[in-house]
Amino acid sequence: MPLRTRLTERLGIEHPIISAPMGFLAGGTLAAAVSRAGGLGLIGGGYGDGEWLEREFSAAGNERVGCGFITWSLAKTPELLDKVLARSPAALMLSFGSPAPFVAAIKQAGVLLICQAQSMAHAKEAVEVGADVVVAQGGEAGGHSGTRSTITLVPEVADFLAQAAPETLLVAAGGIADGRGLAAALMLGADGVLIGSRLVASSEAKTPKGFQPAIMAADGDSTIKTTVIDIVRNYDWPGEFNIRALKNHFVSAWHGHESSLREAPTHAVEKERYLSAFNSGDAENAGVIVGEAAGLIREVWSAERILEGMVAQAEGLLRSGAQHVRPRAT
Amino acid sequence: MPLRTRLTERLGIEHPIISAPMGFLAGGTLAAAVSRAGGLGLIGGGYGDGEWLEREFSAAGNERVGCGFITWSLAKTPELLDKVLARSPAALMLSFGSPAPFVAAIKQAGVLLICQAQSMAHAKEAVEVGADVVVAQGGEAGGHSGTRSTITLVPEVADFLAQAAPETLLVAAGGIADGRGLAAALMLGADGVLIGSRLVASSEAKTPKGFQPAIMAADGDSTIKTTVIDIVRNYDWPGEFNIRALKNHFVSAWHGHESSLREAPTHAVEKERYLSAFNSGDAENAGVIVGEAAGLIREVWSAERILEGMVAQAEGLLRSGAQHVRPRAT
Repeated sequence: MPLRTRLTERLGIEHPIISAPMGFLAGGTLAAAVSRAGGLGLIGGGYGDGEWLEREFSAAGNERVGCGFITWSLAKTPELLDKVLARSPAALMLSFGSPAPFVAAIKQAGVLLICQAQSMAHAKEAVEVGADVVVAQGGEAGGHSGTRSTITLVPEVADFLAQAAPETLLVAAGGIADGRGLAAALMLGADGVLIGSRLVASSEAKTPKGFQPAIMAADGDSTIKTTVIDIVRNYDWPGEFNIRALKNHFVSAWHGHESSLREAPTHAVEKERYLSAFNSGDAENAGVIVGEAAGLIREVWSAERILEGMVAQAEGLLRSGAQHVRPRAT
Repeated sequence: MPLRTRLTERLGIEHPIISAPMGFLAGGTLAAAVSRAGGLGLIGGGYGDGEWLEREFSAAGNERVGCGFITWSLAKTPELLDKVLARSPAALMLSFGSPAPFVAAIKQAGVLLICQAQSMAHAKEAVEVGADVVVAQGGEAGGHSGTRSTITLVPEVADFLAQAAPETLLVAAGGIADGRGLAAALMLGADGVLIGSRLVASSEAKTPKGFQPAIMAADGDSTIKTTVIDIVRNYDWPGEFNIRALKNHFVSAWHGHESSLREAPTHAVEKERYLSAFNSGDAENAGVIVGEAAGLIREVWSAERILEGMVAQAEGLLRSGAQHVRPRAT
């Protein structure tokens, strides 16, 4: 029996679960699998590779999927937005930067606008530009995020939306990988969740070989927020967003030595090593981008099994929650 | 109608809520008010002032309260443990350091042992020493904490306890200030919650004048993890635990300039200014220690009203949670 929330009703989906548009990892196959399983799948727009995006939209076939962009990167290649809108995506998600310059085109195309917020300031900006859905993302998330935490940001954004934009939907992101997180998010006031890390460990993600076993082996203490993965890849991220990844050999070697990593000859050598390690799926020498929820992930499953497992567990918890409320034994 | 969990049953309390043993702020009046309201109140052992502790236990009167220590600090004044155990506390909580040296005395006194864990490593240590209750504390908490977040640490510790020590109770701490947080914590697998920030804004806390209005005015984006509050006070905290407080004038002035603050003449001047500001309740020039939950706190209430409000809101959410589970409209 499915869960029903404002998100499932408004989006016409079965489960209140959206997949994170993870750069490189969330291609059309994953997005389509998530949508087919009853959620809403998003292709990761990443750092603006138009050919990759075209290929991945094609890979999604006729499945109803959306797309997410890194907003500050999209500002450098704004033509990608029109390319994606021409595909009639189910939703367009913007995160990490001001959404304002892109809103008119998205609204004109009649596409659902999802804005991800890492702070109250971002949530207010999302409402100002007319977001249909605000994703409140905590820093326990894998990949880039801010410093707020899911358990405080979600209810605080919920209170703000209740006053300022009661029709705007709220989705919780960061640290949610099973039905407990989904049920907790609903208690906090969210209409649904956005999940990333759990799907890095799905059979449909484009996760480099070697990364999934490393994630299975990791506990939640094994991740760190760092800049070294962006420094080595030459991505000029705004300082307010750091990346969370496994504290592996590469990260441990360079975290705290950022300026050395930036020095030209060292950087050239390390970048080549890094990319080669990424391509070969070497989980010690490339960035294994995953959140604290790594400690909750024990098996690689299909997206369908992940979504169905989450929903079944959340249903059980929600059904039995009322059992806590009862007269004390006399 | 009260909430019932393993925590309420095992501890014989009405509400699954424990108050954080906040140094300086959580005296006997607050602890007694929390216990009287149906939770379990803990006096803050702080940095080891025996006279203060005696006075606060007396202030609690005949109410059943416990006490919490900063473990690394207790190691410097271990005689305080016997003093407190002689008061037959309802529980003894240890946090921030290895509990091992103190466990035998606590167990021998027949006192409930609560160990606070900021990581999986700490949770494992807590089980090894035989904790009756493990508090999983996320870094969104006010005051000292680690880097893990509540929404991932709680279910991961729950999974660990289910395997390693199923009778050990689990309490969630960090970012919980209302019934949404309480209900979410139960969904995540906790048996109850520990709250600090919300009670800083209670009428019974020893909160310096001026701090409560600053907390009411703050949103959750207004706090930061820093070391400057400990540097100025000469507290030699282990590097893994930073303090979360409002980003006020004092913190903004010194955060990022820690070595300047440590320089002898500067330090002497700043310490005097700091203590004077704390004593006069100047919320810009002393450390206003509060978590991200500041954004969820809008009024100063009595501890009783805080606990009753949390429980009533959580009950409503838990009762209605099952409404999400229903057949889709056809």
